[in-house]
Amino acid sequence: MHESKEKPFHFADRLIDRINKKGSSICVGLDPRLDQIPSFIKEKMRGKHKKLFTAAAESILEFNRGIIDAVHDLVPIVKPQIAFYEQYGAEGFRAYEETILYAKEKGLLTLVDAKRGDIGSTAEAYAKAFLGKVELFGDHVFSFDADAVTVSPYLGYDGIKPFVKECKEHGKGIFVLVKTSNVSSGDVQDLQMQDGNTVYEIVANYLESWGSDDIGEEGYSLLGAVVGATYPAQAEKLRTIMPRSIFLVPGYGAQGGTAKDVKVCFNKDGQGAIVNSSRGITFAWENSDKYTEKDYAEAARDAVIRMKEDLAGVL
Amino acid sequence: MHESKEKPFHFADRLIDRINKKGSSICVGLDPRLDQIPSFIKEKMRGKHKKLFTAAAESILEFNRGIIDAVHDLVPIVKPQIAFYEQYGAEGFRAYEETILYAKEKGLLTLVDAKRGDIGSTAEAYAKAFLGKVELFGDHVFSFDADAVTVSPYLGYDGIKPFVKECKEHGKGIFVLVKTSNVSSGDVQDLQMQDGNTVYEIVANYLESWGSDDIGEEGYSLLGAVVGATYPAQAEKLRTIMPRSIFLVPGYGAQGGTAKDVKVCFNKDGQGAIVNSSRGITFAWENSDKYTEKDYAEAARDAVIRMKEDLAGVL
Repeated sequence: MHESKEKPFHFADRLIDRINKKGSSICVGLDPRLDQIPSFIKEKMRGKHKKLFTAAAESILEFNRGIIDAVHDLVPIVKPQIAFYEQYGAEGFRAYEETILYAKEKGLLTLVDAKRGDIGSTAEAYAKAFLGKVELFGDHVFSFDADAVTVSPYLGYDGIKPFVKECKEHGKGIFVLVKTSNVSSGDVQDLQMQDGNTVYEIVANYLESWGSDDIGEEGYSLLGAVVGATYPAQAEKLRTIMPRSIFLVPGYGAQGGTAKDVKVCFNKDGQGAIVNSSRGITFAWENSDKYTEKDYAEAARDAVIRMKEDLAGVL
Repeated sequence: MHESKEKPFHFADRLIDRINKKGSSICVGLDPRLDQIPSFIKEKMRGKHKKLFTAAAESILEFNRGIIDAVHDLVPIVKPQIAFYEQYGAEGFRAYEETILYAKEKGLLTLVDAKRGDIGSTAEAYAKAFLGKVELFGDHVFSFDADAVTVSPYLGYDGIKPFVKECKEHGKGIFVLVKTSNVSSGDVQDLQMQDGNTVYEIVANYLESWGSDDIGEEGYSLLGAVVGATYPAQAEKLRTIMPRSIFLVPGYGAQGGTAKDVKVCFNKDGQGAIVNSSRGITFAWENSDKYTEKDYAEAARDAVIRMKEDLAGVL
């Protein structure tokens, strides 16, 4: 059975719709580090839960709920990075699922930052897990039902295709790693071919072609691209190669990318990118004497408002 | 605190020790597909567990225990592919943890097939999650405590370094994707540089250099390489570039790789590789009228014995 299609249905249209409604292109990264979570939350959860892994997971979840409550009317999408949950095992994984669910309830789109990349049948399992429906004793049910997931291109189209299939069926999207924000991203991504193109440019050309048969009404593909704010010159080139891909732009703020750096990730219509900030928002209370740990959610909201103004200055 | 070091401590030495003790270089892939798990297991678990996700996870776990019991004295290592567990959410993740634990109890090394690849701080979280210790309210405890994990090289050394750190500290290993077994692996991996080298050859050169400062007593690095049996010509070249990396060789059996194809993945000493088979072993009962689903574990054992003979014929 096919679920009834909401409108807009295409992932890019849904994302742009939320961006317009919220008036910002900000993606809030939820990367909870237990040692940075306010102690009043951790103490409460240690009092409530005997098992330490459960107390850790519940601390993360409570912290996330506070952040989501504080920012949900200002941003279109959140991106919990799954490593920070997986490290606490099944309990952490449950906190991940609950975070996705809570964000959706609050009207946010959810982007699973998992950077999965595997061969056909395994990629299919990941795609069904995060975006589509899994087989359950002959029935098919949503597991995560997130809106999008990040994917690695190292295994080629075999690793992308199963995601595209689920995206088309369920109105979901993917963001493929193209040029990442980290210092050594060039080790593989900047390698230069005989024709002068780099690996990241070739991956960008693949994306442009792989996504060309399903463009939304706003003109964007369901295959987005991860393009780091820390490499503005490369981002500018990539914007030209992939005019129809929405860029997920990490590296703003804590990693050094400025509003000016991310400007080139947008198209001339002011669309085509979401800019992520994680620590700069979620742990903003640590960066100013104005706040105590009790104010962590308020500090996050203030940080989003500042980031919105910062981006508005260049867009 | 540093745990007391077992002997051998270096991952490559530990793996070779097990290979010698078990008399085989076979890695059993545990990729449970619910629709292929014998119905008597699924019916039992549906009777026991009201929640379908729990029944699915428990079916997977029971199935895996049967396989592990049947093969643990014949093989050095098992490789559960995490996608097939993650798709059932936190319950599936718990089945993953329990599978790792059970395999360890039965004297097997455990390889987390997760193909994780992320930037510094996130890669660190993955590395601590799977191989090292995670922060838990000021304490540091093992979460998965698996022996090795597969990692993607697309983000460069930033994504590898945190794993190497944990490997050195805890006697663990990683297998980095170099040339994968799937049809479209060439989309990125076979791209040719100006100097004639391909991306997979350059990644191989990185591995040889990144692993050079910690070679075990048997002469192997803690950085292994994933090299598909389906590309024997490339594997032969890679064996020369990385004489000190243990190859994890997928693609044997169900994917079409033969014993002759995998021969080139070994060094002349008959060491230096583990050959994975997943479906060909775990679902062997489906491929012969000799077995009913009740015989799934026996069929798996027979399949391992046949594979052992097949490999012995060429090594």
